[in-house]
Amino acid sequence: MTAQDAPADFRAEAAELDARDPLAGFRDRFLAPEGSDLVAYFDGNSLGRPVADVQRRLTEFVAGPWGNRLIRSWDEAWLDWPMQVGDRLGRVCLGAGPGQVFVGDSTTVLLYKLCRAAVDAMAAQGRTEVVLDTDNFPTDRYVLEGIAAERGLTLRWIETDPAAGVTLEQVREVVGPQTGLVVFSHVAYRSGHIADGAGITEAVHDAGGVVLWDLSHTVGSVPAELDAWGADLAVGCSYKYLNGGPGAPAWAYVATRHQDALQQPIWGWLGRRDAFLMGPGYEPAAGLRSFVSGTPPILAMVPLDTTLDLIEEAGMAAIRAKSVELTEFVLRIADAELAPLGVEVTSPRDPDLRGGHVTLRRRGFRAVTATLWEEGVIPDYRDPDGIRIGLSPLSTSFAEVVDGMSALRDTVERIDAFQ
Amino acid sequence: MTAQDAPADFRAEAAELDARDPLAGFRDRFLAPEGSDLVAYFDGNSLGRPVADVQRRLTEFVAGPWGNRLIRSWDEAWLDWPMQVGDRLGRVCLGAGPGQVFVGDSTTVLLYKLCRAAVDAMAAQGRTEVVLDTDNFPTDRYVLEGIAAERGLTLRWIETDPAAGVTLEQVREVVGPQTGLVVFSHVAYRSGHIADGAGITEAVHDAGGVVLWDLSHTVGSVPAELDAWGADLAVGCSYKYLNGGPGAPAWAYVATRHQDALQQPIWGWLGRRDAFLMGPGYEPAAGLRSFVSGTPPILAMVPLDTTLDLIEEAGMAAIRAKSVELTEFVLRIADAELAPLGVEVTSPRDPDLRGGHVTLRRRGFRAVTATLWEEGVIPDYRDPDGIRIGLSPLSTSFAEVVDGMSALRDTVERIDAFQ
Repeated sequence: MTAQDAPADFRAEAAELDARDPLAGFRDRFLAPEGSDLVAYFDGNSLGRPVADVQRRLTEFVAGPWGNRLIRSWDEAWLDWPMQVGDRLGRVCLGAGPGQVFVGDSTTVLLYKLCRAAVDAMAAQGRTEVVLDTDNFPTDRYVLEGIAAERGLTLRWIETDPAAGVTLEQVREVVGPQTGLVVFSHVAYRSGHIADGAGITEAVHDAGGVVLWDLSHTVGSVPAELDAWGADLAVGCSYKYLNGGPGAPAWAYVATRHQDALQQPIWGWLGRRDAFLMGPGYEPAAGLRSFVSGTPPILAMVPLDTTLDLIEEAGMAAIRAKSVELTEFVLRIADAELAPLGVEVTSPRDPDLRGGHVTLRRRGFRAVTATLWEEGVIPDYRDPDGIRIGLSPLSTSFAEVVDGMSALRDTVERIDAFQ
Repeated sequence: MTAQDAPADFRAEAAELDARDPLAGFRDRFLAPEGSDLVAYFDGNSLGRPVADVQRRLTEFVAGPWGNRLIRSWDEAWLDWPMQVGDRLGRVCLGAGPGQVFVGDSTTVLLYKLCRAAVDAMAAQGRTEVVLDTDNFPTDRYVLEGIAAERGLTLRWIETDPAAGVTLEQVREVVGPQTGLVVFSHVAYRSGHIADGAGITEAVHDAGGVVLWDLSHTVGSVPAELDAWGADLAVGCSYKYLNGGPGAPAWAYVATRHQDALQQPIWGWLGRRDAFLMGPGYEPAAGLRSFVSGTPPILAMVPLDTTLDLIEEAGMAAIRAKSVELTEFVLRIADAELAPLGVEVTSPRDPDLRGGHVTLRRRGFRAVTATLWEEGVIPDYRDPDGIRIGLSPLSTSFAEVVDGMSALRDTVERIDAFQ
């Protein structure tokens, strides 16, 4: 049995779903792997595939703005580009009005800058507790541990089940008069659970705290509504559903009302008022620019900006609709084909609570993942025993889902047969 | 008179110098500007020109490691790439043995991480003074102001003349039992003055302090000998003489003996021991890796790695020799053609004390720079009244120097004629 063999009904259903998928055409706008073993890519939630246009855009960028205009491009375009791409990202994906999003640094560094700014401001009001959950992405947890250690803050941990995510009820229980900053991922990296952005933000505000949302697993997959939630701060990466390439720059959101009150700790020349005077003494620039530190990663923003062309054309509502169909389809196949082999679904069943990936669990899935990778079927593995099936709506077809899920079933069966 | 008109002797001398330049052939390995107005590029000390191979390397990177191998490339290559490129950079340009240099973040962020690690360690020994100079690059000054404010440290400023740089004598005068961290640029961004790397490092060590060198204007132009100097820490950018592209990632050097004793403050998942366990509680990885925070900027490292091919082939000694010839030639032209117009040289006359650029000064040079840019002659302007003639040895010909310097002279004459 090869990876292409699948029960006729799922294959037929995939054909139907692909035929009526309004976004089907976008798949051809990603770079076709040449001479590749790729059968099914289920890891766009970790590293998105390149948009085909990225090669041309990079080549033109090297020749034109960099090679031809050279240093003049800073004045002509680049100084404002982190804010311009940020505004576009805010409008297309984040529900954020202009002047609140910029691109730069890594998610880790932006988390540090924004969290430090927030805890310092809250500590000045006597609010020295930071609330977070035990299953947030490691970087979020580690960054806050480091900040708590250096600033003498208390971490209040919400115990979350890796198969679920943080709930409004849990948040209400822990926030109070000591609460300063609260940090959660909107879509949980293991389970894919979607937290209640509006409700949790309101609960934190009711307690007098501020909230930072990590939207790394949200942006480009699940529409966010930062302004409507009343969010204070947010960060996210751009190499997952935004296809920015490995180690692509991150982005940050700082609500307009906080921009002049918060001061981030890494004082670079491009965040200073009148940067090009290069004068003595740091004075933060007005507005969002004070959150910039060093020279922004201009070349590295090109792929992200290229993806935004596609997302803007498709629209986040249509992307989310396809995302739900893709994860529902994976669940139907998992229930029919994998449950009999002892595979559990550890992502939410309710599509309103489920982001763009589905996590399946079974003993031995680490070895299964290694085998699948060799066969060109690429999910990823997360402890404990979890395979994440990531489904990037613009680059994934339903037929690909059947191919990949069939390979997963075959691999589990083969391993079982040897035991 | 056009920019091509120049006294016959300088043009003839340029032809001779180009004819016997052993590195002349490298100029054709940079991307030829197409349809460009470019006459002379004198700003490789701010943004280096792209190597021609960068377009192919980026295109292949997008197709292969990113588009084809996808997430598997992290295991196959990328996790170690920041250290591998760092080792190569250390060997080829920095006089640094393996395991001490990595690529990532921006210069500003790396300055923050390394300076914080150093001042925290030194403060634990009761050493709470940070020594720096008034003409260091703004980011270096601002980062240290921010750190001093948050950690309660004292900044000891050495007053440097913008037309010179920090001297060993000045350093000896200020370091003492309170000295913790000392931060200087090796090549001064305004004057191009080369500080005494070995002597100053020794003087700081004699006083019990540690020193961080900013090599942004050094790397790829002036050979550094970090290990031989006994340097503790260093940082630098890669978008100047390393031609990494706008906003290219920076690099940092942490001497092996300090790696386990120093702890940087931005605790990301990729700096943790056993990162992929994603376990609770941050524990720094062994060695240099603990200085990494988030996901390294892999795509953005491709141009830098491409330039290293050229630098390795040419050798830093030959690059430095040509750099000295280029700056000497600029000085001869300036003395003959510009001094009569009131233009002063504010860079060191002694080639041993002069880096890869020459700064010229005259009232009204801000407007002169704007005019030159429109004519495709591109130096940059730095307050007060300074035009920097940056000479990137691999991409600059002596004929280009004559063209650009002639245009500068013509522009000054034209402006004077109107006044």
